[in-house]
Amino acid sequence: MKLSLKSRVYDLLDVTSEEPASRFCSAVIMGLICLNVIAVMLETVDSVEMAYRGFFNVFEIFSVLVFTVEYLLRLWTCTSNVRFGGRVKERVRFALTFFAVIDLLAIVPFYLAEIFVADFRFLRALRLLRLLKLGQYSKSLQTLARVSQKKKNELYVTFFVAFILLVVASSSMYFIENSAQPKVFSSIPAAMWWAVVTLTTVGYGDVYPVTLLGKLIGSLIALLGIGMVALLAGILGSGFVEEYQQKQGEPMLCPHCGKPINSHSDS
Amino acid sequence: MKLSLKSRVYDLLDVTSEEPASRFCSAVIMGLICLNVIAVMLETVDSVEMAYRGFFNVFEIFSVLVFTVEYLLRLWTCTSNVRFGGRVKERVRFALTFFAVIDLLAIVPFYLAEIFVADFRFLRALRLLRLLKLGQYSKSLQTLARVSQKKKNELYVTFFVAFILLVVASSSMYFIENSAQPKVFSSIPAAMWWAVVTLTTVGYGDVYPVTLLGKLIGSLIALLGIGMVALLAGILGSGFVEEYQQKQGEPMLCPHCGKPINSHSDS
Amino acid sequence: MKLSLKSRVYDLLDVTSEEPASRFCSAVIMGLICLNVIAVMLETVDSVEMAYRGFFNVFEIFSVLVFTVEYLLRLWTCTSNVRFGGRVKERVRFALTFFAVIDLLAIVPFYLAEIFVADFRFLRALRLLRLLKLGQYSKSLQTLARVSQKKKNELYVTFFVAFILLVVASSSMYFIENSAQPKVFSSIPAAMWWAVVTLTTVGYGDVYPVTLLGKLIGSLIALLGIGMVALLAGILGSGFVEEYQQKQGEPMLCPHCGKPINSHSDS
Amino acid sequence: MKLSLKSRVYDLLDVTSEEPASRFCSAVIMGLICLNVIAVMLETVDSVEMAYRGFFNVFEIFSVLVFTVEYLLRLWTCTSNVRFGGRVKERVRFALTFFAVIDLLAIVPFYLAEIFVADFRFLRALRLLRLLKLGQYSKSLQTLARVSQKKKNELYVTFFVAFILLVVASSSMYFIENSAQPKVFSSIPAAMWWAVVTLTTVGYGDVYPVTLLGKLIGSLIALLGIGMVALLAGILGSGFVEEYQQKQGEPMLCPHCGKPINSHSDS
Repeated sequence: MKLSLKSRVYDLLDVTSEEPASRFCSAVIMGLICLNVIAVMLETVDSVEMAYRGFFNVFEIFSVLVFTVEYLLRLWTCTSNVRFGGRVKERVRFALTFFAVIDLLAIVPFYLAEIFVADFRFLRALRLLRLLKLGQYSKSLQTLARVSQKKKNELYVTFFVAFILLVVASSSMYFIENSAQPKVFSSIPAAMWWAVVTLTTVGYGDVYPVTLLGKLIGSLIALLGIGMVALLAGILGSGFVEEYQQKQGEPMLCPHCGKPINSHSDS
Repeated sequence: MKLSLKSRVYDLLDVTSEEPASRFCSAVIMGLICLNVIAVMLETVDSVEMAYRGFFNVFEIFSVLVFTVEYLLRLWTCTSNVRFGGRVKERVRFALTFFAVIDLLAIVPFYLAEIFVADFRFLRALRLLRLLKLGQYSKSLQTLARVSQKKKNELYVTFFVAFILLVVASSSMYFIENSAQPKVFSSIPAAMWWAVVTLTTVGYGDVYPVTLLGKLIGSLIALLGIGMVALLAGILGSGFVEEYQQKQGEPMLCPHCGKPINSHSDS
Repeated sequence: MKLSLKSRVYDLLDVTSEEPASRFCSAVIMGLICLNVIAVMLETVDSVEMAYRGFFNVFEIFSVLVFTVEYLLRLWTCTSNVRFGGRVKERVRFALTFFAVIDLLAIVPFYLAEIFVADFRFLRALRLLRLLKLGQYSKSLQTLARVSQKKKNELYVTFFVAFILLVVASSSMYFIENSAQPKVFSSIPAAMWWAVVTLTTVGYGDVYPVTLLGKLIGSLIALLGIGMVALLAGILGSGFVEEYQQKQGEPMLCPHCGKPINSHSDS
Repeated sequence: MKLSLKSRVYDLLDVTSEEPASRFCSAVIMGLICLNVIAVMLETVDSVEMAYRGFFNVFEIFSVLVFTVEYLLRLWTCTSNVRFGGRVKERVRFALTFFAVIDLLAIVPFYLAEIFVADFRFLRALRLLRLLKLGQYSKSLQTLARVSQKKKNELYVTFFVAFILLVVASSSMYFIENSAQPKVFSSIPAAMWWAVVTLTTVGYGDVYPVTLLGKLIGSLIALLGIGMVALLAGILGSGFVEEYQQKQGEPMLCPHCGKPINSHSDS
């Protein structure tokens, strides 16, 4: 009977399960994580912090309690998972998995701060680590990770091209503009800030070329920046589309034999 | 005979009809809505408002008359629609549909303002609600809605990624830049304005990092922002292309049996 | 014999011809047009204009001579084209075609300015019309026109969505920010400048919201702006790719029957 | 035996080889090139240069030694390559290949500077040429070059459209804004800086239209700029995706005969 309860709790907390109760449980914890993050952000607004300090404290205690219960339940039920073997060893092994460590990091700072009187500001920053818990629950992030994994060759190219563009842009601009704006383009790493802001087409306007040659080269860099955006757009976009086409189980079928035409080697 | 006239009027106002008279009628009302919106915008320019006040009033009265006639005709002819049943009940049911409420909202403020002397400014804002009437007539917006519906999984991922990027960007920038620019990065929600402006590559230039670490993290965020733009671009673009390929009746055909290869489960 | 010369000249000036002599002739005239445009631009730089006034005048006279000869030859040889019928009538009919009018506009201002002493500044602007002559020679622009024609439904949607986004963005921002920045957001059309600069992610930084609500709505508009960029990117990009796939004569072929799988109704 | 050693060294330095030792060797040299570039950039920061001058000098001597050994080994072993014929002639022919010249340019300035006392600043710039050595080792850059080659027709169109947009945008803005901002829009080339910054959606904010007509035309240009970004995005993105689909050997297969449907003429 006790084992039955344990595996029922295990199923409830299983993020991959499609059962209503399990999905509801996941949704509740995801919502709580999001609310936690919003709370941490709002606490940095002085006026809000003054007015609702009590409420934030209660909410923090409540959150830590829920996350603690979640962590302890996971630790208790992990023996239901076939991946983990013996009695004590399995729990240790589970506790050292990536998401178990993150779950622990999400609650430990609170208890430490209660025991020792820790720096409140630093504690606040640590509470944002709870955002990482989302990685366990969110299928969206797992999809993104899978797409990035699949398209990693293309992404390498883009990053490599971006690196070379950044080096060329910042170096040339430094040699051109250094004499005209010695303060702004004081060194190549300083010119790199301009290069990033231009290549990403953000263009804050705090740094820009003023000489004729600088404007010419700057124009070229800006046009190349569009190309970089374009590269990434095509790669990531097509990756996502492919991923969902496979998932939806709606492959391109040949009406003759009913087999997918667009099949990949791994299916 | 009367019923015949009623159903003829119903067909005339039917936005899905492909008959010339009906399409002409739709085009006229769409044009009138657009002119209304432009009129509301121009009225906010003081010099234009002074010079053409009389003209704007006449145009407003004319528009309200047309929209009133349209609303009453729809209310009268809605019994021709098989979806609505009995005599009185059907009219009430029709009057509670989304677009009927919008049609009513487009004219009621005018009559209310005539009876009571309402705040002119607030009335002006309400007149912009007439823009929503376009949703009934525009096939373009309906296509967009359909594409968004189809790609909603991918769009969820993008919004979720955007949310996490915004949280990470604004939090990290707040902790880094708060001491250097305590006014601009006064809190995480304040830093979020910077994060949005950077991630969308708008880059007004009212807020930007000044410290070395801030510029480093800011560069990373800007590059990730490109990735976000890229994700959306690929998803929305491919969705639109698919939608129109299906519509144009030019599916990829199997040369054997002549049936579309690219068929979806719903066709 | 004379007719033979006439049709040889006609072939030489025929932009669709693939013969080496004809392509060389096209390239020379395209180059001359580009040089003309660059000359007009450089003349607006005072220091350059001072130093090279004589050279620019000689180049202008040379260009007008070439374009005049080209125009007269086209007028003379147009009878070789089967599209134009009788002796005098055919020349009049040819002279009224779009590109013949543009060819005339490219040279007439020069002669008018020689006869009457025209405003030099205005004449300069007219000389930029020669850029339109490129439309006759450039296959690239014709490809772009064809793609836009094919994807016109999708482009309508985008423009329509852009129009609605602009109206919603500028109206809401006007009502929100008018009291805080009465000068910058003085009217809805004034707020529209902000809306365009934000939706296109240009972000000059001359206008931006300062109130909390304004920043919230502004953030939303900026994120929607990315969506608009994304829509256009997907539509135009896919259109171009399709166009070139068809052109290269490399359709997707079924290895069985050798017929194109991706065939369109018009092929 | 000696020949055997020579061809073993040749294989080791062969960038196209897939052997572990050869790939390790490539990775080491690529890493050294990147470190060199970073060193050159850091040296321009005065405070870093002061503190680590000795370290930078040692690193420079070490790098030049490695690159010299690499160059000499390549020159010695090039006879193993069937492409090069006789004894002396083949070495001369090898030494005149593109990458051999770059390899030489990467080390010669150092020796020249040791013999004559050259301008240190100019030497620093030349050292950035070592970045070009990456072209020999990086498969990413070679992929990018191949995609650009394949899509060169589409890229021509984009550049041509960009050129015409730039001319039209800068000319019209010059004629409109010259009287209102005679300093900023002093000539068409000056207005071109605004045109580039707007069309690429960078938008520094140092130059922007202030008149009503200027803002109208500027809005139009900004919207067209999005179209240009979109064109490039679609073209480059789709090109990359095609390239990798071919490489991964996962073509679309016809379920009948098992042959790739998406085959190109060259496969």
